[in-house]
Amino acid sequence: MTFQELKKYKFILASKSPRRQYLLTELGLNFEVKTKEVDESFSSELKAQEIPLYLCNKKAEAFVEDIDENTIVITADTIVWVDNQVLNKPENYEDAVRMLKMLSGKKHEVYTGVCLKSKHKTKSFYALTSVYFKELSDSEIEYYVKNFNPYDKAGSYGAQEWIGYIAVKKIEGTYFNVMGLPVHELYEELLRF
Amino acid sequence: MTFQELKKYKFILASKSPRRQYLLTELGLNFEVKTKEVDESFSSELKAQEIPLYLCNKKAEAFVEDIDENTIVITADTIVWVDNQVLNKPENYEDAVRMLKMLSGKKHEVYTGVCLKSKHKTKSFYALTSVYFKELSDSEIEYYVKNFNPYDKAGSYGAQEWIGYIAVKKIEGTYFNVMGLPVHELYEELLRF
Repeated sequence: MTFQELKKYKFILASKSPRRQYLLTELGLNFEVKTKEVDESFSSELKAQEIPLYLCNKKAEAFVEDIDENTIVITADTIVWVDNQVLNKPENYEDAVRMLKMLSGKKHEVYTGVCLKSKHKTKSFYALTSVYFKELSDSEIEYYVKNFNPYDKAGSYGAQEWIGYIAVKKIEGTYFNVMGLPVHELYEELLRF
Repeated sequence: MTFQELKKYKFILASKSPRRQYLLTELGLNFEVKTKEVDESFSSELKAQEIPLYLCNKKAEAFVEDIDENTIVITADTIVWVDNQVLNKPENYEDAVRMLKMLSGKKHEVYTGVCLKSKHKTKSFYALTSVYFKELSDSEIEYYVKNFNPYDKAGSYGAQEWIGYIAVKKIEGTYFNVMGLPVHELYEELLRF
């Protein structure tokens, strides 16, 4: 399939994330946003990329009954993985500070799982980006949590907020994956779908 | 110097680039934009980071007469370096296609030189990000150049345009450097300035 042929499909992006909506728009595809409530709990036996792959498949499954011909549903899930554990959304101020201290001065992994589902096919894949944080001072952590309230963010940080600008020394992989949608990989998988 | 102390300074960003203005805003500093005309030619003997370092220093020199106390001027220059040569802005359609073919399927380097200048001090530094492009098809190159007119962009591409989303497989370094201002490094250098 070529990029021009891709444009003939109708896409459904099953995500409320404005950043994912923005990135898919930039990719130049026609899509609408449609989300379904899905239980996002997962077994504690799942590790690293297994978690977002499990969750994006689950989100896609919810659409199984109502996918028209020529429609592709795109679901995604992003996690932060550090010290062999997943970081969820922080519960309160202390929890946010605790997570940022875990990320300070070291590398963590951001995994995004993406699932493509049409009437006849399902394909899922993931992308990995390693993110290297500088050593954060207590006052930087305090300034960020108090001014940016990262309570809706897994791992307590937004890469496109102040903390992302000052703390990220280096990444390996793509920035768009850290933003929540690995657009290069998505594009390649769509051409092959 | 702490981040809170930094906020007491007045900054002048000597760049017309809206992306640099955006990134410096996100860093949370008070600044105004003031640019001076500078001859941006450079010796062909300069290589890689030497080019943006030379140019950002030259841009900062232009302010030497009028920097007040408590003011820091920030200048920057970004280049694309591939196959041991610098890529400038493309002259026409054919030139843009030629440059994108040079970048296709391989790694290139993005260097940004930054100069900080106060009444009493000057400091310059650079950041490097390696960018890995997938193999671009002729139709992808044609689609991009015709629809995005990258004639104002060194290397004929904008990382935050369609081509950046589909082509970039991986980066090593920071994305903000590719956007034109290495904000993490800038923040660290300002704290030490």
